[in-house]
Amino acid sequence: MTPDDGSFRTAFDRVAAWIEDYYRSPGRYPVLSRSRPGELIAALPGEAPEEGEPFERIFADFERLIVPGITHWNHPRFFAYFAISAAQVTVLAEALAAALDVNAMLWRTSPAATELEDVTLGWLRRMLGLPDAFHGIVYDTASIGGFTALAAARESLGLDIRARGMAGRSDLPALRVYITEHTHSHIEKGAIALGIGRENVVTVAVDDAFAMRPEALARAIDDDRAAGFRPMCAVATVGTTSTTSTDPVAAMRELTRERGVWLHVDAAYGGPAAVLPEFRWLLDGAHEADSIVINPHKWLFVPVDLSVLYVRDPELLRRTFSLASDVLVTYESGVHNYMDYGLQLGRRFRALKLWFALRTFGISGIQARLRNHIALAQELAGWIDAEPGWNVVAPHPLSVVCFRYEPLSTASGQAQPQDGAGDDALNLAIMDAVNATGEVFLSSTRLRDRLVLRIAIGNERTTREDVRLAWDLLRREAAARRSPAVV
Amino acid sequence: MTPDDGSFRTAFDRVAAWIEDYYRSPGRYPVLSRSRPGELIAALPGEAPEEGEPFERIFADFERLIVPGITHWNHPRFFAYFAISAAQVTVLAEALAAALDVNAMLWRTSPAATELEDVTLGWLRRMLGLPDAFHGIVYDTASIGGFTALAAARESLGLDIRARGMAGRSDLPALRVYITEHTHSHIEKGAIALGIGRENVVTVAVDDAFAMRPEALARAIDDDRAAGFRPMCAVATVGTTSTTSTDPVAAMRELTRERGVWLHVDAAYGGPAAVLPEFRWLLDGAHEADSIVINPHKWLFVPVDLSVLYVRDPELLRRTFSLASDVLVTYESGVHNYMDYGLQLGRRFRALKLWFALRTFGISGIQARLRNHIALAQELAGWIDAEPGWNVVAPHPLSVVCFRYEPLSTASGQAQPQDGAGDDALNLAIMDAVNATGEVFLSSTRLRDRLVLRIAIGNERTTREDVRLAWDLLRREAAARRSPAVV
Repeated sequence: MTPDDGSFRTAFDRVAAWIEDYYRSPGRYPVLSRSRPGELIAALPGEAPEEGEPFERIFADFERLIVPGITHWNHPRFFAYFAISAAQVTVLAEALAAALDVNAMLWRTSPAATELEDVTLGWLRRMLGLPDAFHGIVYDTASIGGFTALAAARESLGLDIRARGMAGRSDLPALRVYITEHTHSHIEKGAIALGIGRENVVTVAVDDAFAMRPEALARAIDDDRAAGFRPMCAVATVGTTSTTSTDPVAAMRELTRERGVWLHVDAAYGGPAAVLPEFRWLLDGAHEADSIVINPHKWLFVPVDLSVLYVRDPELLRRTFSLASDVLVTYESGVHNYMDYGLQLGRRFRALKLWFALRTFGISGIQARLRNHIALAQELAGWIDAEPGWNVVAPHPLSVVCFRYEPLSTASGQAQPQDGAGDDALNLAIMDAVNATGEVFLSSTRLRDRLVLRIAIGNERTTREDVRLAWDLLRREAAARRSPAVV
Repeated sequence: MTPDDGSFRTAFDRVAAWIEDYYRSPGRYPVLSRSRPGELIAALPGEAPEEGEPFERIFADFERLIVPGITHWNHPRFFAYFAISAAQVTVLAEALAAALDVNAMLWRTSPAATELEDVTLGWLRRMLGLPDAFHGIVYDTASIGGFTALAAARESLGLDIRARGMAGRSDLPALRVYITEHTHSHIEKGAIALGIGRENVVTVAVDDAFAMRPEALARAIDDDRAAGFRPMCAVATVGTTSTTSTDPVAAMRELTRERGVWLHVDAAYGGPAAVLPEFRWLLDGAHEADSIVINPHKWLFVPVDLSVLYVRDPELLRRTFSLASDVLVTYESGVHNYMDYGLQLGRRFRALKLWFALRTFGISGIQARLRNHIALAQELAGWIDAEPGWNVVAPHPLSVVCFRYEPLSTASGQAQPQDGAGDDALNLAIMDAVNATGEVFLSSTRLRDRLVLRIAIGNERTTREDVRLAWDLLRREAAARRSPAVV
């Protein structure tokens, strides 16, 4: 395949036509793949081909074998986890990035990649109303951004851990991280990786709205310090994964500042909503945080992967991670060599797709899409609230609704513990039946030890009719199971 | 931009035409971007646009502002760091992956993404002659793969670090990692992150060919154990960054096994050469290692990012990183949920481009390209060796040649220390002048405390004429500086 005989362009046109057609109606496929475990493995040869194969054969296999094994995140009725979608133009940005094949490890290895990162993250910072004191860096995932923030928090303690490590030292107290049961698991993973240890990740109590109780955080920190631990970092979430609850960031900032504890804000999902003036409050206390993670690949219309970490002190990141290397010696002063600001040396040119997305939609276009998603979620919550036997079980300020079918509790008037367990099995059966239709895909979570269904809206193709269809299917499957005997 | 009015396809065609034209002659651009620090930042607005912009305007800015800020990794005379290039078909794979926008965190979130990863990494394992006992997982970079291997090594110690952490424990010895001065810096970064500490990364002596001395490793481990340290992991490199030297993996395996120390093999660059029967020996001892990193985005013709970690015990990785999550609860048994095998929850569908590349080139096509790169490097080394005043300064078994212009040392017959320093400045001046032409881009390293020039060949478009041009430019710039006064 070369440009010279036209074969590259022919193949490219074939792919462009496929993607155009796909975008015309991704809803034609079952949302959740119906592939069985091992099916693709069995369908493919066990060895790479000895001789090269023509594009037509590879692409035919893509259509025949890969597409049926795809769970369609682009389907307008993908309501699981956090629903996402990307501006179509970002596919072109990703193709260009792959064609240029830049490794943006150093400024000089493509100045435009580093500087476009600075420009687009400056745009985003202002869109979110964050102060210019924050410096943004692109990582692949919130997992890495959160890990990096924890690493910086550890370095900020001045305990010489970079040089001396943590093991075999009698002078080091155990370091403590504060979360809630609703904090995303990547924080705990990061704490494990950094040698903090799971037992030193302290779960602070939440209130009725699933938000951290600040007085409980203050007490946990003070108790820990009295017990000889070193409180290192508190994590506030803006838009938790289960319910999109938001921790009291401002109160957490005040009490962590008084106590010399790093405040990290995980706004991976919720942060983008601060683009809306009516949701600017979401980041209120975050303005004063030490670090903030925002995921454009969640709710700002770029494809995975692109996560942003904003920090007040980028030099601290550099001190945490930078190492001299004889091959990678640099010459320019006053530039950022972003390989020095994190674990990863290799860095794709990710800012390109963010630039394409922000310019294509504009701030007003992004606002319109976010408002639409939030409005759809509010309407769904209204339908659920109005339906006998169904209950919305958590506040739903953004685009996620948690709810539950509770005919037993409702029927008995006074809920009994065993009713809850019965309803768990019933809700699971309803969800599995609904997902098995291929028409929608939703996921569940647990709240107050009960299984809860969850619909997340975030795809720009999702319409009122799509949400309505999900709701109709849920009620249909519930009706089919109305007699407890059916459970 | 939508598929319905044809605007998406029009934009896609514009991008396809640009990429086709780019691939026709990436050599038309200066290799190293001539952009000045801050130039792109100054050229772009400080705020995102309020209203969306048409594609034509965005793409015009891409051509006008971004392309001049690109250092062209695709240029046939990019000889810096490790030169790389991707099969053109992989651009189509990346476009498809972006269009599908799959997060391959769980098997069910796209079974094909997880299973194609298993299939292609099985193909690669057999191409490299590695035993089936190895299980491969795709990560973004070798930095993450190496970090993950070190994390698994730490977990394998049975010291309960996952739960209890490393700080504030009187029962933990300092953990030690063994490298050489030529080991890639990501290992040291990983050790910093994991709380091992830089001081516990022990630099073992190398021989005249820049390979670790196994007896020095044995002594370092034994001395450490006697001193109360806990030897954790030794890192063997197959193809170091500076010179492509290879550590004695088999000897290292034998002595680390006897001593209960994890052996990690960083074959990020050198590993792919084992696809050639005549270089199968490169991975000889690696067959017995605990973990191996191979970078298809270096020398196996896929674009960044795609790095592979092979481990003998994937269950250990899962034990290191997996955490239950209520939203991400899974149902299928006997499948891999790869979010449980590393730090990152979010995972792009990276296997698709590897599948496209391996099938398009076939094993024989990959072998032909690697052999060509190696032959070009050998020919270059011959030219340098034959030229008075120039010296090849390291073995060059693969596609990288390290060399130096040493007129002072050569002229005086007996090299003096101050001659070396003078030659350092001279070689740096020659490199900067050559790079400033825009015709080639090469980088330097340091060997035995001397600055050394380095040409890495890895782009599939690189011809004998390209290498010749680089050599001609080097000699021209050296001749222009022949009088020491010019330095």
